Amino acid sequence: MNQPTVMMAEMTWPEFGERLASDPIVFLPTGMLEQHGPHLPMGVDHLLPTAIAAVVAREVDGIVAPPVNYGYKSMPRTGGGPSFPGSTGLDGATLSAVVRDIIRELARHGVRRICVIDGHFENLWFLNEGIDLAMRDVGATGLRVMCLQHWEFLTRDTLDAVFPEGYPGIELEHAAVLETSLMMHFYPELVRMDRIPDNAPMEAPPYDVWPARREWVPETGSLTSAAQATPEKGMLMVEQYRRDMVAAVRREFLS
Amino acid sequence: MNQPTVMMAEMTWPEFGERLASDPIVFLPTGMLEQHGPHLPMGVDHLLPTAIAAVVAREVDGIVAPPVNYGYKSMPRTGGGPSFPGSTGLDGATLSAVVRDIIRELARHGVRRICVIDGHFENLWFLNEGIDLAMRDVGATGLRVMCLQHWEFLTRDTLDAVFPEGYPGIELEHAAVLETSLMMHFYPELVRMDRIPDNAPMEAPPYDVWPARREWVPETGSLTSAAQATPEKGMLMVEQYRRDMVAAVRREFLS
Amino acid sequence: MNQPTVMMAEMTWPEFGERLASDPIVFLPTGMLEQHGPHLPMGVDHLLPTAIAAVVAREVDGIVAPPVNYGYKSMPRTGGGPSFPGSTGLDGATLSAVVRDIIRELARHGVRRICVIDGHFENLWFLNEGIDLAMRDVGATGLRVMCLQHWEFLTRDTLDAVFPEGYPGIELEHAAVLETSLMMHFYPELVRMDRIPDNAPMEAPPYDVWPARREWVPETGSLTSAAQATPEKGMLMVEQYRRDMVAAVRREFLS
Amino acid sequence: MNQPTVMMAEMTWPEFGERLASDPIVFLPTGMLEQHGPHLPMGVDHLLPTAIAAVVAREVDGIVAPPVNYGYKSMPRTGGGPSFPGSTGLDGATLSAVVRDIIRELARHGVRRICVIDGHFENLWFLNEGIDLAMRDVGATGLRVMCLQHWEFLTRDTLDAVFPEGYPGIELEHAAVLETSLMMHFYPELVRMDRIPDNAPMEAPPYDVWPARREWVPETGSLTSAAQATPEKGMLMVEQYRRDMVAAVRREFLS
Amino acid sequence: MNQPTVMMAEMTWPEFGERLASDPIVFLPTGMLEQHGPHLPMGVDHLLPTAIAAVVAREVDGIVAPPVNYGYKSMPRTGGGPSFPGSTGLDGATLSAVVRDIIRELARHGVRRICVIDGHFENLWFLNEGIDLAMRDVGATGLRVMCLQHWEFLTRDTLDAVFPEGYPGIELEHAAVLETSLMMHFYPELVRMDRIPDNAPMEAPPYDVWPARREWVPETGSLTSAAQATPEKGMLMVEQYRRDMVAAVRREFLS
Amino acid sequence: MNQPTVMMAEMTWPEFGERLASDPIVFLPTGMLEQHGPHLPMGVDHLLPTAIAAVVAREVDGIVAPPVNYGYKSMPRTGGGPSFPGSTGLDGATLSAVVRDIIRELARHGVRRICVIDGHFENLWFLNEGIDLAMRDVGATGLRVMCLQHWEFLTRDTLDAVFPEGYPGIELEHAAVLETSLMMHFYPELVRMDRIPDNAPMEAPPYDVWPARREWVPETGSLTSAAQATPEKGMLMVEQYRRDMVAAVRREFLS
Repeated sequence: MNQPTVMMAEMTWPEFGERLASDPIVFLPTGMLEQHGPHLPMGVDHLLPTAIAAVVAREVDGIVAPPVNYGYKSMPRTGGGPSFPGSTGLDGATLSAVVRDIIRELARHGVRRICVIDGHFENLWFLNEGIDLAMRDVGATGLRVMCLQHWEFLTRDTLDAVFPEGYPGIELEHAAVLETSLMMHFYPELVRMDRIPDNAPMEAPPYDVWPARREWVPETGSLTSAAQATPEKGMLMVEQYRRDMVAAVRREFLS
Repeated sequence: MNQPTVMMAEMTWPEFGERLASDPIVFLPTGMLEQHGPHLPMGVDHLLPTAIAAVVAREVDGIVAPPVNYGYKSMPRTGGGPSFPGSTGLDGATLSAVVRDIIRELARHGVRRICVIDGHFENLWFLNEGIDLAMRDVGATGLRVMCLQHWEFLTRDTLDAVFPEGYPGIELEHAAVLETSLMMHFYPELVRMDRIPDNAPMEAPPYDVWPARREWVPETGSLTSAAQATPEKGMLMVEQYRRDMVAAVRREFLS
Repeated sequence: MNQPTVMMAEMTWPEFGERLASDPIVFLPTGMLEQHGPHLPMGVDHLLPTAIAAVVAREVDGIVAPPVNYGYKSMPRTGGGPSFPGSTGLDGATLSAVVRDIIRELARHGVRRICVIDGHFENLWFLNEGIDLAMRDVGATGLRVMCLQHWEFLTRDTLDAVFPEGYPGIELEHAAVLETSLMMHFYPELVRMDRIPDNAPMEAPPYDVWPARREWVPETGSLTSAAQATPEKGMLMVEQYRRDMVAAVRREFLS
Repeated sequence: MNQPTVMMAEMTWPEFGERLASDPIVFLPTGMLEQHGPHLPMGVDHLLPTAIAAVVAREVDGIVAPPVNYGYKSMPRTGGGPSFPGSTGLDGATLSAVVRDIIRELARHGVRRICVIDGHFENLWFLNEGIDLAMRDVGATGLRVMCLQHWEFLTRDTLDAVFPEGYPGIELEHAAVLETSLMMHFYPELVRMDRIPDNAPMEAPPYDVWPARREWVPETGSLTSAAQATPEKGMLMVEQYRRDMVAAVRREFLS
Repeated sequence: MNQPTVMMAEMTWPEFGERLASDPIVFLPTGMLEQHGPHLPMGVDHLLPTAIAAVVAREVDGIVAPPVNYGYKSMPRTGGGPSFPGSTGLDGATLSAVVRDIIRELARHGVRRICVIDGHFENLWFLNEGIDLAMRDVGATGLRVMCLQHWEFLTRDTLDAVFPEGYPGIELEHAAVLETSLMMHFYPELVRMDRIPDNAPMEAPPYDVWPARREWVPETGSLTSAAQATPEKGMLMVEQYRRDMVAAVRREFLS
Repeated sequence: MNQPTVMMAEMTWPEFGERLASDPIVFLPTGMLEQHGPHLPMGVDHLLPTAIAAVVAREVDGIVAPPVNYGYKSMPRTGGGPSFPGSTGLDGATLSAVVRDIIRELARHGVRRICVIDGHFENLWFLNEGIDLAMRDVGATGLRVMCLQHWEFLTRDTLDAVFPEGYPGIELEHAAVLETSLMMHFYPELVRMDRIPDNAPMEAPPYDVWPARREWVPETGSLTSAAQATPEKGMLMVEQYRRDMVAAVRREFLS
């Protein structure tokens, strides 16, 4: 281990304790156990933000806390919905409580800057709420928290390069070109290259219904084709993430 | 990948869906982010049960769900307490809710046999409660759940072999011979061999106090010496775990 | 009162009881008390969905339950954030509980088809969760629930007509052309015509931070200009809502 | 609009912001959606306190927050119970949370004096609890809160005038002379004058039972006769409310 | 022990198990730890309903579960409020949860008829809620629950005998003639006969305020004089309770 | 009453108020309603800690709050499990909330030193959590809390004297020699001397399963023989408790 790890779970407590002295940014990856088409593993949503967090943390001498592996329930229009085998969702209040408790505890140790990096579309508002409740618990101590979903950082240029035929929007990009390319880059051994789906995009109405409608969702679970995914596109996105997320955390936290 | 993975996070949904047909046992590892002495990483409590669960799952054609990486608050007498940098505990109700939600969701997918394998002493009762609440939610569907803490399976013979000078009891075995030997076996690259502590055992009174007393706990965070840890002892324990946990899940679930 | 009211709060119980026999769709408007620029009243988010719900209900012989007047906390990027005087947000779990309880109670009375019409962007996921929890409470009784945010129904044609210079996206449309036009249509007496803002659009980064940044938000609280709002545009939108929401509830509930 | 509105939902945020400078009393009406006999609409319990709050607010330059339209479950002995079609009750903790959140948010904006005016008998203790929890959240900031149920203000003189044959007590006055007279005064168009019930008073035992007993309750849902209701009696009560509630809030808040 | 005990806490499990066969009524006393004037012990509110429950249980071959010793927060107008040393209140949701859990568990053992006997005015609505939530948990199993506050059973005749100068109403009867007489009857050794207060009645306004106003409450904590209390009046009340509560539970449960 | 009572429920508020001036230790006994074999009453778990608390309180001029009579659910391996008639368990969060509320309230009255004495094995972690949450509520006020389970204080010498054939461990000591001897000492009239069980010890595996297995538990409900119980052994234990618990509270609280 030439370079010291950025992963908090791999540090000893004295190592973490020493790092605290330099007021590090702690990154918290949040994910989900959920279907990601016939070709991607169900852990995509915690695997990607953990990898991205490590990329960014290395640049800013930050620390990556262990990922929250389970997230909010999948919805048909953005993740295929609960009926796919293996999609294992938490109640919203549970997810908020997990994030609230982790942030409150990190703050108790003296961490003052936390960046939540999320990989599961449906998580966002329960993360927001968990952060807000932790801020209320912690009070006026100077704690600052950012929350982001990685795809929100993609610029027009990157989208043009990754989706030369047009970006279908994040809702359809579940288990499609975006996530597949990133997985090819970070975890190629976990991608079933022979099962990359090429289905037509989902056509969903502008509302949700309960009980969920499985028939709205393509058979594959990919909400549109992933055929144009490549590891190079994954790398391109990661490079842009690195540049712009580093800039963002510096702007918010180090200035 | 010659042998198919047992890790649920690495499976695609069709793979998991197929596995459901054979009524598999699903193992849920539960851990904590917590100090483990000067030589072990803070993720020990999720790393060990995940590895043990994989060992057992391979024998019974089971599946290992992603670990719950955060657990209940550390107590001084069993884990050093909350004041060690990095010990990041959830509230009890949060941990119970996480386990309740995961079990309810697995049961919704048709899983009927779940075995929680815990690696953090303080977790137990909140796991019990989460399971009990999930059973209430699920009703009379035939769902059966086991819950175990791995060290409870150690037999007299194993303890005699691992602790020739006498087993100090699980409370003191935090970050000591037991956990260190298992980490040497499963994750040798994560053990700081040059910092293995050799302190005298903690002497704690038969009660707890709040605010927690850091002065009760040895400086190292190891509650007794880890000097006698070896990877061979780790393997010995794992072999016994494999044998006896397989027997236990067969007895409870497959008969 | 030539035409009987569709408002549940104005019905007597025998009137509602009689209506139950025809298996009516019940619409539940959900809103927020929140800043809406210098020209719109803070009740916009419950006023609009209540009015829209009444429009749709009249077409399908439906019933409009009293609005939920308070909603989830305002976020800077979509509503200006909590620091504007008067923005009065509920915790997420509170909002989910309100919706859960109302749906469970309506179902207890025999209502089998409920359509939540939301007027506050930040509410959506806590509404989703409240509905999902109510579905779990109610069990397999045949209850079906829709949830929609009205602007999601706007078609390309309508957007082209309302925003001849391009639709800025719903996030920026807080207290801007869309809401102002609808308010001019439904509640002209509540619009301060002399204070319609014409500020430049908000430029927000692709993430959130806590504590919230007031400086991200235009002084007015309108996230972009409302200068192009007209009652005619409001009517145009309402007419399309009427047509397409009626079609949607018929498709989901009456077929 | 010659006189500026007292309704917070009709104010813009700059208007509310200006009002904050004069340290106004904010009134929060709380109600219920519940059967009120064959002649009164189901929204009586939020309609009346909203109207009363406006009357009082105008006298003390106060502000009326939007009503909480849903309240605690109806009980047979005081509201007819849950079995009447349309009686749509929240769980107690839900109602307490709504009130807690609203008060905490108003206090965050700098409001220091809040008066909850309730129109639903069964709400009281959950309002008390919500207020108490908000006081705990807010801490020693000088916040003061009053909570009242409007009928508690009726004096002996008023009761003698309204009930020349004797006041039956508030429990029986559900959907009877008191509420009917007030509705005739404030919302005559919502009273079905041809269906005013004249049934004998409910005879209920001194306890409650679950499941609720519908047979304890008069068929009409009015717990005693409303035949003696008149708009003049309504006005008489309102005038006394105006006088005495104004005196009470001045005594508690302005001295 | 000639007569077998009615107290569940004193029974062995086989004794309770045998009793279950005859479908017994289980009585659950609920109280509070709260000031009761200078002459009564702070446990009055669990002591009295426990004693009354035993009286009634003996008549109907019933069983008295152990009392819930802590109850909802004292309010100034009915119990003197929270500022008296020793008044130790639970949050409303806590009390409801205790009662919900106990009832659900009793029902699990096959108990089908439960009567909650309360001794603390402020408890009522949180008991109601706990019962209602337990009914929801238990579903349509035939479980029936009564809830009563003992003083509600006092008849006009008893009140005339106990209060020859007129009944001041239950709100003022905190730690006054009613409770003192009952304590003299059941627990004479716990009454400080030399400190019976004789203060004027509290004059409280028709509303509550937070923070609580200690100055509204008589110095003694007794809300009116207890000077006219006698053990004979206590016995008179108990005899009437016995007669009428037995009749009530027979009417509700045994017919 | 020559010696003033230590029982808080028997004190008047002025008596408690006076005691507060001397900064007393308050003891809170926590128990359970649960099967305790064929010979012990189901209230053992609150009866014993209440008696022990009184013994200790008398030595240190302390105060004993009323016991919490209901506790966490019985588990088969330590209490026989939920299927025994009468074992009436609270949910974990309920028990934690009760303890949290009581401690927060005692602290509000100025109590600064609280010792929870528990009599039910399964309670411990939910007590810990309730205490921890109360500490968080109360903040840095100097409040200190101890929590103990009485049997943890037994020394090697006492165990040798009480169990000359060897201490089977606390798990098996449910309703066996330890509890029976203590009950013979404190409450001899409640012990059915003719039904003292003499069954072989329970043989339980090192894990738990849901649904609970009644067949793991001896028919009697005593997890091992109670035949060697005597009141003298009870007294011996109590004398040691007195000595060592007094020393412990002095060490923690009075130094």
